[in-house]
Amino acid sequence: MKNNVGREISDEILNSTNYKPFETTEIGHPTVHYTGHDVRVTKGDDKLVDSLDQVIKDNLKDGMTISFHHHFRNGDYVFNMVMDKIIKMGYKDLTLAPSSLTGVMNDKVIEAIKAGTITNITSSGMRGSLGEAVSHGLLKNPVIFRSHGNRARSIENGNIKIDVAFLGVPNADRMGNANGMNGESALGSLGYALVDAQYANKVVLLTDTIVDYPNAPASIKQTQVDYVVKVDKVGDPDRIGSGATRFTKDPKELKIAKMVNDVIVNSPYFKNGFSFQTGTGGASLAVTRFLRQSMLDNDIKASFTCGGTTSPIVKLLEEGLVKKVMDVQDFDKGAASSMKSNPGQTEIDGSWYADPDNKGAMVDQLDIAILSALEIDTDFNVNVLTGSNGVIRGAVGGHQDAGTAKMTIISAPLTRGRIATVVPAVNSITTPGSSIDVLVTEVGVAVNPARKDLIEAFKKAPSIPLVSIEELQKRAEGIVGKPKPIEYTDRTVALVEYRDGTLIDEVKQIKD
Amino acid sequence: MKNNVGREISDEILNSTNYKPFETTEIGHPTVHYTGHDVRVTKGDDKLVDSLDQVIKDNLKDGMTISFHHHFRNGDYVFNMVMDKIIKMGYKDLTLAPSSLTGVMNDKVIEAIKAGTITNITSSGMRGSLGEAVSHGLLKNPVIFRSHGNRARSIENGNIKIDVAFLGVPNADRMGNANGMNGESALGSLGYALVDAQYANKVVLLTDTIVDYPNAPASIKQTQVDYVVKVDKVGDPDRIGSGATRFTKDPKELKIAKMVNDVIVNSPYFKNGFSFQTGTGGASLAVTRFLRQSMLDNDIKASFTCGGTTSPIVKLLEEGLVKKVMDVQDFDKGAASSMKSNPGQTEIDGSWYADPDNKGAMVDQLDIAILSALEIDTDFNVNVLTGSNGVIRGAVGGHQDAGTAKMTIISAPLTRGRIATVVPAVNSITTPGSSIDVLVTEVGVAVNPARKDLIEAFKKAPSIPLVSIEELQKRAEGIVGKPKPIEYTDRTVALVEYRDGTLIDEVKQIKD
Repeated sequence: MKNNVGREISDEILNSTNYKPFETTEIGHPTVHYTGHDVRVTKGDDKLVDSLDQVIKDNLKDGMTISFHHHFRNGDYVFNMVMDKIIKMGYKDLTLAPSSLTGVMNDKVIEAIKAGTITNITSSGMRGSLGEAVSHGLLKNPVIFRSHGNRARSIENGNIKIDVAFLGVPNADRMGNANGMNGESALGSLGYALVDAQYANKVVLLTDTIVDYPNAPASIKQTQVDYVVKVDKVGDPDRIGSGATRFTKDPKELKIAKMVNDVIVNSPYFKNGFSFQTGTGGASLAVTRFLRQSMLDNDIKASFTCGGTTSPIVKLLEEGLVKKVMDVQDFDKGAASSMKSNPGQTEIDGSWYADPDNKGAMVDQLDIAILSALEIDTDFNVNVLTGSNGVIRGAVGGHQDAGTAKMTIISAPLTRGRIATVVPAVNSITTPGSSIDVLVTEVGVAVNPARKDLIEAFKKAPSIPLVSIEELQKRAEGIVGKPKPIEYTDRTVALVEYRDGTLIDEVKQIKD
Repeated sequence: MKNNVGREISDEILNSTNYKPFETTEIGHPTVHYTGHDVRVTKGDDKLVDSLDQVIKDNLKDGMTISFHHHFRNGDYVFNMVMDKIIKMGYKDLTLAPSSLTGVMNDKVIEAIKAGTITNITSSGMRGSLGEAVSHGLLKNPVIFRSHGNRARSIENGNIKIDVAFLGVPNADRMGNANGMNGESALGSLGYALVDAQYANKVVLLTDTIVDYPNAPASIKQTQVDYVVKVDKVGDPDRIGSGATRFTKDPKELKIAKMVNDVIVNSPYFKNGFSFQTGTGGASLAVTRFLRQSMLDNDIKASFTCGGTTSPIVKLLEEGLVKKVMDVQDFDKGAASSMKSNPGQTEIDGSWYADPDNKGAMVDQLDIAILSALEIDTDFNVNVLTGSNGVIRGAVGGHQDAGTAKMTIISAPLTRGRIATVVPAVNSITTPGSSIDVLVTEVGVAVNPARKDLIEAFKKAPSIPLVSIEELQKRAEGIVGKPKPIEYTDRTVALVEYRDGTLIDEVKQIKD
């Protein structure tokens, strides 16, 4: 059958699982049950242990689900350390349920899959060699891709039942009180890991810095932690960032950034108390810089930003242009290390950030989200997960979640090299077009026809070159031509959930 | 049958409930299940409501369990406001499950019982007219008295299933982010209420101060809150304290306080990094003052204090004599208002403070607890719940919980007026004698014979007049004589749980 965004969902999947096909971005007001979890009662005097091996041996069994966070990003030392031991100890059939997988973890995940240690994965995304391997059929069962909000939701409702969470932290006391703010490997917000700490049956902290008891503030609390393992080094904070902390000099990126800012400034949302989320990368930082100037020029202050936090966002906080930075994750060392000295930089967990099934997430309150796209089609559906060759090389991240903002802007070049960004149909759908309001490219701005109010507003702004998305698609095709269709096998290698847990797409195995 | 502290537990109770009789203070390492709860999904745009009546009507049904916190103590305006509406709306058969009941709530609780609105109560304690009424049989079913830690435990494991929590807060934003630190009615730590916010199916905040969104720090989070109701005034912070914030001038109290300090200083626990909990009241504040001087004289600093926080404790923090104040509740306006400016004054929830069924509570880490007693018997069993006439007039509070400290000191006068404190057998047991290590009275210090190490330590201190507890009991009886036995009926009006949920005692109805 086809779901509501026209994607084929195989009967096999629908029959063998509890999935419902994606229907709507309007989630409504169901009453959902938040699951319980098991707790081994302890006074805690035996939490501090030297032997990670012993902790694994005492707590892990074949078939269990293990989790990690990805806050250290490519500076992570914990994942490989733990996974290496688990592989060597001969465990089988584990489900890997990290908040996401970064490139530095790829080799070890592939090794674990080949060893039969990992047979199931749920993640926000995967890239590089791991994406290639999975797209070519390496993993036994389909990967389940979930947004950050959906992961929190799925842990809360028991769809992801974490048996053992291995969480790297830059500091902890002997009882497990820990935060991300202090220590040599400070990573800032522990946002995504906080849900694991709350719901996992067993919580193992790994840290290189044991501090005096009691440690405060405690983002992760002693009431949640079973073990504290001292290791040499948990991560390299210099590699948290992608490197792109400097303003772009690329004229195309600058043009897009300037136009995104024009869209914001000319929208009905640009007024005192507005809120926004930007992403990472040079273009996004450029938007932040243009927006800063517009806020100064118009004497407008924002109530909050949310999502991943960068140094330029922290600067807005310090300047008083933003009142609160609701911080689920930090994208560079500067943002990470500023958390301890900026009370307005407030740590929030993955549920608070983006869970669609709670009593109100930050993203529900967002006025403006600026998001990226690998592809966007003429129905405004966005793909941030698979490349133009159909291979997995991205992450859902908070894309579906922040897509609920009152005005969601996709900022993307019309083409990248010989590849069109605006296409007739994306090769996989991450975020449905009904969530997307505006597409900004270097050659024009397309507004979702459902948003007549925005079209009217932007018509009054001479600096915004309005154009239809079909026109953009044709221009892209005119530049790069029609690509050869991707050849897939019938086998499903990944399921893409919408943030409410319905199935928005399947990713098929690439034909070799 | 008799339980392990020799108290008669009626077959009727054991047969009609799941209770097990109290056995031991050693809880061990069971694996317990933390219960889930229901959440009504919302984006939160409709949380801010004017009509408390409508909120009650939409969410409350006969037979449900409602909760409140007692952080405003006798300055609370919320309980009576809400309960008055509930009574008038004709609800029946509710279970009242507040963190405790203070005197200012008594009339309204009695009215609700008489109206059939409340037929079950679980609380930390009750005093005055309500204690009298319950002891004389007013309530349909036995009250269940639980310690603060046991309440958290019982909410977590589902024994207390809160349908609707009505929580007064001194500030909140329109989505329900709230803390106890700011606003005209600041109460400091919201510790006990945090467990309700986390587990109740419906959470209703009442506040007199709506602040800009998003509010931070958020002790209670928008993800937990269903409604925010604006009211005129939630409480009077001047009435949080009992008034006893000044140093006692009573020579007997001073003598006891000085001796308690001698016991601490001469114990093996008085060294750098030690931890302690003191209570409220003039004598307790005097202990804090003596201890401060001893810490200065000996150049000793404490790692933390826990439990209810007073201004003299905050002063120790400010002076650097205590590193962290782990604050579950504030006992005076000064302590309440200092939380926002003292980062070391760390808010902890009821579970973190004292839950016996988690991964380690603060009380498990305590070196020294100084507690009070209405009665203590020659087995060191303590009663803080019923008066010498058998009438309920106290609260379990954190007594059983802090009793797990390495050295638990009971500080009490030998007699109060014509009433003995040290007795052959207490008229109800709150905390088992195996938890109690030292009794300090104005005429001598009795050490639990199980603590030979302490006896040896104190023998070396000439300032500590060691005496057996039997001797103290005889001296008390010599002064006030043998009291007439209390006359009870066969009917049980209250069950006293030990902190692990076993039954440590029953309180019978008083014969009129």
